[in-house]
Amino acid sequence: MLNAFYAQSGGVTAVINASAAGVIETARAHRGRIGKVYAGRNGIIGALTEDLIDTSKEPARAIAQLRYTPAGAFGSCRYKLKSLEQSRAQYERLIEVFRAHDIGYFFYNGGNDSADTCLKVSQIAEKLGYPLCAVHVPKTVDNDLAVTDNCPGFGSVAKYVAVSMREAAFDVASMAKTSTKVFVMEVMGRHAGWITAAVGMAEDAATPIPLVLLFPEVAFDEARFLAAVDERTKRFGYCCVGVSEGLKDAAGKLMAEAGTRDAFGHAQLGGVGPLIASLVKDKLGYKYHWAVADYLQRAARHVASRTDVEQSYAVGKAAVEYALAGKNAVMAAITRVSDRPYRWKITAAPLEKVANVEKMLPADFIAKDGYGITGKARAYLAPLIRGEDPPPFRDGLPQYVRLKNVPVRKKLAPFEA
Amino acid sequence: MLNAFYAQSGGVTAVINASAAGVIETARAHRGRIGKVYAGRNGIIGALTEDLIDTSKEPARAIAQLRYTPAGAFGSCRYKLKSLEQSRAQYERLIEVFRAHDIGYFFYNGGNDSADTCLKVSQIAEKLGYPLCAVHVPKTVDNDLAVTDNCPGFGSVAKYVAVSMREAAFDVASMAKTSTKVFVMEVMGRHAGWITAAVGMAEDAATPIPLVLLFPEVAFDEARFLAAVDERTKRFGYCCVGVSEGLKDAAGKLMAEAGTRDAFGHAQLGGVGPLIASLVKDKLGYKYHWAVADYLQRAARHVASRTDVEQSYAVGKAAVEYALAGKNAVMAAITRVSDRPYRWKITAAPLEKVANVEKMLPADFIAKDGYGITGKARAYLAPLIRGEDPPPFRDGLPQYVRLKNVPVRKKLAPFEA
Repeated sequence: MLNAFYAQSGGVTAVINASAAGVIETARAHRGRIGKVYAGRNGIIGALTEDLIDTSKEPARAIAQLRYTPAGAFGSCRYKLKSLEQSRAQYERLIEVFRAHDIGYFFYNGGNDSADTCLKVSQIAEKLGYPLCAVHVPKTVDNDLAVTDNCPGFGSVAKYVAVSMREAAFDVASMAKTSTKVFVMEVMGRHAGWITAAVGMAEDAATPIPLVLLFPEVAFDEARFLAAVDERTKRFGYCCVGVSEGLKDAAGKLMAEAGTRDAFGHAQLGGVGPLIASLVKDKLGYKYHWAVADYLQRAARHVASRTDVEQSYAVGKAAVEYALAGKNAVMAAITRVSDRPYRWKITAAPLEKVANVEKMLPADFIAKDGYGITGKARAYLAPLIRGEDPPPFRDGLPQYVRLKNVPVRKKLAPFEA
Repeated sequence: MLNAFYAQSGGVTAVINASAAGVIETARAHRGRIGKVYAGRNGIIGALTEDLIDTSKEPARAIAQLRYTPAGAFGSCRYKLKSLEQSRAQYERLIEVFRAHDIGYFFYNGGNDSADTCLKVSQIAEKLGYPLCAVHVPKTVDNDLAVTDNCPGFGSVAKYVAVSMREAAFDVASMAKTSTKVFVMEVMGRHAGWITAAVGMAEDAATPIPLVLLFPEVAFDEARFLAAVDERTKRFGYCCVGVSEGLKDAAGKLMAEAGTRDAFGHAQLGGVGPLIASLVKDKLGYKYHWAVADYLQRAARHVASRTDVEQSYAVGKAAVEYALAGKNAVMAAITRVSDRPYRWKITAAPLEKVANVEKMLPADFIAKDGYGITGKARAYLAPLIRGEDPPPFRDGLPQYVRLKNVPVRKKLAPFEA
């Protein structure tokens, strides 16, 4: 009976462990067909260095707790395997480790890079005649994976930024008469404006908020931006700005980078959020506040989207089922069946269609003036932030699990990853 | 039958509207003895400019919704009345407005400054022979009011920063092998380190986290700080830093100010959070991330402390009861009866003992090395963050109320506030 290998890759999310729970619980439900699930300690590095975690040592309760524990329970890593030619030794080492530990199933939980790695691992296995089923489990707060309706992890960040901006807007509105008039919140999403778009969900017909969104897809135009902020501030008394960390100027240069060095080449502090805020102060004279939630937004399991949690678990579960059905080099993708009510199912997408493709925010999701979202964007985003699934709290704090992460005894000689 | 005046002052909180609900609902319950509750639009400025809001126009349901709506529903302001001599015209104007609208009860919801104003208003009323009962309703996330066990608004910020740091710590721990090793979160509390101390609640015996806290009470010592971060990072693989916006150097100068100007006097961006993070990078070479939650922390009604919500409501309710009992120039203070179980009651504290007194973090709340909290601090903080009281969510977002805020017809000539 073959064992499975599972690893987490890249930036973690509030719900990637729900996918882990989906993988492990489903594998346990098929005990007759899958042996143990080994997890890579710190992602794929754990496989390369034969640093495997024996998840069978964790009680069922701990695995169930993963469903509501943020971040990567086995550790993640930023480590990109290159082409088969460039990283041949690494790919061969992976197969060597899999062979040594009777691993027949490879579940890789990550974004674009890991989809690519997953595909390449399946190819090298075939080339070397090693029988392996490689299935990709999608994850990325950036929501930029192709084929899948959305990426597990995104819905919870989307909910976090929408909730946070709504709450901050109530605050600013209270203070605007004599104090802060403009509030700037920087959000993640360096290449695609999905998270920026989600800030737009802070407002709706019942709760209008004067918002200006700065998408990475829309070149920053200082004069137009300042005019937009000024107009809203004069009309409503205050204005809220959601800005992507990936905002670029007309030359395509990251604003955050432009702002991080002064004329003398000295590194300056702060990201694009404080930069935009200080621009508002300097040019319009409005008192401002700014926030950069950074990791808080992607770790905020306490306010995760229930839809996101359910889908994260579902892609993990489906990945195991696909592997058992012999599907190789596929990703467990979310397919939207309908918007209202939101219906979805999990389907197997060929990894060739996913690897190295970035799904950008469609142009018709961005309002004509470039500073807001359209009804189409709302229809897409609305179901993804819906529903709450709070973790258990004790003494006022969420109770997250830490696994024992018992190592598997090594069988091979060391390898320099 | 006399009317009441209620106003919100200074920085708003996640629960100040719960105090407003306590005032208005209790006044409504004594309809035979109190007429209408008028609210100041944008705080005390509303009284000075005779811009009053008739809260009797709001249905009971809207007032009940205030209990779970963050920020100041009637608007707040940063406007400090000075001494009776310096601001005589303003104080007299207040009485003139109260007289014009048959106001016999003055409820002022704020921090130190507003406690002082409340006291002075009661004094000028007496001097002018105007019958007025002035009661202060405490509010401040800074938790620096004297007499009261804690300040409504603080418990929810405390919970927010503890939850956020716990979640971020799980994230950093996952990434530390190949990426971010040090995470820095800047928190509010310019003068006293209460909120910084609350960051320490992120960790406990079941969830240890390598934390370094930078209190405004402890002069920043760069070498010692870097050694502390380095030691934790080497031992645990990562380190989390909670830093007060009010951190000062040995000369008593705010670090944030020191960091906001370069050698040429140019304003630089960012607060003390990014400053500390960049120090870690420059001197220790660790990859870092930083967050500045800013308004998000004090507006985060979605993760408010139930204890805080209950106490906020209770001080509003008690204020009205005190006024009806003829108690003048008092604050509705929270008195701790016991730690475990946490028992508390509301008592009337003379405003002379509250006004202009700052309650600093006791020295024995700070660990010997200056970078953590003691058991005594934990015993104090634990009950304040306890319990959840989430607002209702619809379509994935909290549903907060916006009042109609119908103005009261003016009776006086304009006044320049």
